[in-house]
Amino acid sequence: MHYLQSFLIRLFNLTALLVSLTPALFSQNADSLFISSLYKEALKDSTSYKLLGQLVNDMPGRLCGSKASLDAVNWSAEKMKELGADTVYFQEIKVRNWKRGKKETATLMISGKNKPSFEICSFGMSKPTPEKGLKLHVIEVDGIESLLALPDDSVKGRIVFYNRKMNSENYSPFMSYGEIAAFRSTGVSEASKKGASAILARSSALTIDSFPHSGVMRYSEGIDSIPALSICTRDADRLSELHKSFPDDLLYIKTNCETFPDTTSYNVIGEIRGSEFPDEYIVVGGHIDCWDNSPGAHDDGGGCVQSMEIIRLFKKMNYTPLHTIRIVMFMDEEVAQRGGKKYAELSSLRNEKHVAAIESDRGVSTPFGFSADMPDSCFSSLTQMVNLLKPWGIWLCYKGGSGVDISPLKPQGVPLIAIVPDSQKYFEFHHCANDKIEKVNQRELQLGSAAIASLVYLIDKCGWRFKN
Amino acid sequence: MHYLQSFLIRLFNLTALLVSLTPALFSQNADSLFISSLYKEALKDSTSYKLLGQLVNDMPGRLCGSKASLDAVNWSAEKMKELGADTVYFQEIKVRNWKRGKKETATLMISGKNKPSFEICSFGMSKPTPEKGLKLHVIEVDGIESLLALPDDSVKGRIVFYNRKMNSENYSPFMSYGEIAAFRSTGVSEASKKGASAILARSSALTIDSFPHSGVMRYSEGIDSIPALSICTRDADRLSELHKSFPDDLLYIKTNCETFPDTTSYNVIGEIRGSEFPDEYIVVGGHIDCWDNSPGAHDDGGGCVQSMEIIRLFKKMNYTPLHTIRIVMFMDEEVAQRGGKKYAELSSLRNEKHVAAIESDRGVSTPFGFSADMPDSCFSSLTQMVNLLKPWGIWLCYKGGSGVDISPLKPQGVPLIAIVPDSQKYFEFHHCANDKIEKVNQRELQLGSAAIASLVYLIDKCGWRFKN
Repeated sequence: MHYLQSFLIRLFNLTALLVSLTPALFSQNADSLFISSLYKEALKDSTSYKLLGQLVNDMPGRLCGSKASLDAVNWSAEKMKELGADTVYFQEIKVRNWKRGKKETATLMISGKNKPSFEICSFGMSKPTPEKGLKLHVIEVDGIESLLALPDDSVKGRIVFYNRKMNSENYSPFMSYGEIAAFRSTGVSEASKKGASAILARSSALTIDSFPHSGVMRYSEGIDSIPALSICTRDADRLSELHKSFPDDLLYIKTNCETFPDTTSYNVIGEIRGSEFPDEYIVVGGHIDCWDNSPGAHDDGGGCVQSMEIIRLFKKMNYTPLHTIRIVMFMDEEVAQRGGKKYAELSSLRNEKHVAAIESDRGVSTPFGFSADMPDSCFSSLTQMVNLLKPWGIWLCYKGGSGVDISPLKPQGVPLIAIVPDSQKYFEFHHCANDKIEKVNQRELQLGSAAIASLVYLIDKCGWRFKN
Repeated sequence: MHYLQSFLIRLFNLTALLVSLTPALFSQNADSLFISSLYKEALKDSTSYKLLGQLVNDMPGRLCGSKASLDAVNWSAEKMKELGADTVYFQEIKVRNWKRGKKETATLMISGKNKPSFEICSFGMSKPTPEKGLKLHVIEVDGIESLLALPDDSVKGRIVFYNRKMNSENYSPFMSYGEIAAFRSTGVSEASKKGASAILARSSALTIDSFPHSGVMRYSEGIDSIPALSICTRDADRLSELHKSFPDDLLYIKTNCETFPDTTSYNVIGEIRGSEFPDEYIVVGGHIDCWDNSPGAHDDGGGCVQSMEIIRLFKKMNYTPLHTIRIVMFMDEEVAQRGGKKYAELSSLRNEKHVAAIESDRGVSTPFGFSADMPDSCFSSLTQMVNLLKPWGIWLCYKGGSGVDISPLKPQGVPLIAIVPDSQKYFEFHHCANDKIEKVNQRELQLGSAAIASLVYLIDKCGWRFKN
């Protein structure tokens, strides 16, 4: 082949290649620029942190059925309007209605000595002790297997004290949580089956502190409902030590929680109407309820204000989405997830089309990336979207679970996504009084909002056809 | 070709492939298992966190030349022996010797009103005010360029108040720090050249708080040495507001810092002797000095105890390194880096061979990865080592700077590495009284130790020939 001919063919091929690449490059560049502006806007504005301060300081203990939870419902509706949502509305649900009561006590009745008290709390949905309390022997075990290995008469009429330390050796504290969470699900019924009169479980925390952690518990069908309590890690250690010295002394416990009839509550939804596909939805949400013994900053006030922040960011950036963006404050994640179930039920009834659902409910520390529950075809797009966020420290994208409130959408084939932040400190706050605004860092909250907003933008603009 | 022949050839090829892969697979698996055990050991043991507590609570304010810095020198030598170092020794250096003096004051002399005071501190190495203090007009500027644009007579005899907010829009707070760090280097001399009598610079923090941040300042040759002070962000805002209302009122400042003759101090080195290459070294270090107005937990007590933890981990795991591991507590990072320079000077004189040098001096939040200053051939190995650490959240590996104390080794061709943690909160602590033990999370500290120890293990075992 003549040299000039060869040169021209090569030139033509190169030009064709450049022409074919140009739209992709241009588009990717435009996306990166938009995302960069979005991060800058999120990082310089403290609106969402201030909203979180209001929510957790003015409406702590937002357990479903409580006045605080209804205040938070109205507050979040109001705030989404102020932020510029086109529509804000409620979805009515029935929720369980359990109240802790005023004072919960645990004291070791050491004869002739100071009687040490312990920081405890009932697990959510627990039955109370009798009005006069219970004064019983304690049997300490390190797990359900150890309990099952004991003869029934060494358990009968006693308080079973599950005192397994949360395993600090795992990299993921959630893995360690999984190893001990059974104490307040099957652990209660197994103890009851063996004749125990109550259970007391060491709180799920890697730190030694004075916060008893709550969380929902369950009684199996046909099992005697015995009181189920949580004891803070510091006092689990103290009780264990004292119990070695005074094994025959009685532990006095008294709780007065009460279960009332189901009551009315609400999901709150704020929408930015889509310009091209108003009847197709991208859901972003967190849960507005939290445990009654907690301000609920990380779990999940942070997820709520991060979701609300999408409205502010898109308005501020003059970005009108193609699809309708639904910001959902789910009710009742902590007890029976009736908010999430109701949302999915209505979506199914109305035959709604959801492009994606994103949940923020793993605390609001520095975001690492996303966990996805979706078909491979979508996941391949998602990984390429996430690649665009690497300059902002977003590096993780894996197939795994999504979130408790959006997972009922799975049967409808909705691609589900959870934001995954650093979880090293999460169990210092989880379900306890320590989950307060001071434990949330403004920049970490903002980085999470920006990461979610960037993903919503990319999904909205490119759907699941995104290629990087 | 006959089918059987073809089959046998394929079988042979497959076998050969498997045989050739086996050592690599086996070795990688063994490495992963070792690293996994190493992380478990690091995460379950609180020795390094307790050591950090001792260092920052018993010996805060370890500025070179201070008694606290010498106490820390002796303490770290003692602790490295206790942890099991084979040898512990000192490298003598001469360090500068600046003392802050007892009380530093800044008050706005508003006539007939309450006279508001501000939280300030001298920058390190600053000259003091005259004994009676200075009572002068303030001129506020947002940067050096704005200052240079002013006529000299509006600056002459005044206090130049650099009040540029640290930029919150950057993802990296270090980038924002770089944008304003000049105020205490060139900013002092530029103000002096224009006839200013002192400078007061807003502290480098993204948060609004009451901690004035220190840091070293410099006078250019032949420039009048004027006092250089830092004002906390809260009070920079207050002063700026008040200055607008009372522009003619005088600011009274009084400092009594003093520069004494250079004095003697030390690097401290603990060694684990190598079994195969005792005369080849892997250095791991942090700096034992810190600012006098700070407990020095993140900067850099954490880096010191993470380095010391390598000794404990290797002993506990019964790992005898092939090369000699040198744990170095560098002195005087904060002022003139004479510890780092002395270490490199002696290494050069003795013609020592260093396999690698690793520094931990960017705070001890959750580790993300490593920054490397080394040839491509080594960097390619490093990225493959770092890949092995992905299950522990180590995802970042890039060519960039290393650390102030190890960089003098660069002319000797030593591959240099810095551990890079999450930096979002770093400037809440940097060079101020807020850098205390309560701001360090035990797990984050442990994860950093484990990441460094894993890297030391891989470099020691495989050198720069590591392939994954």
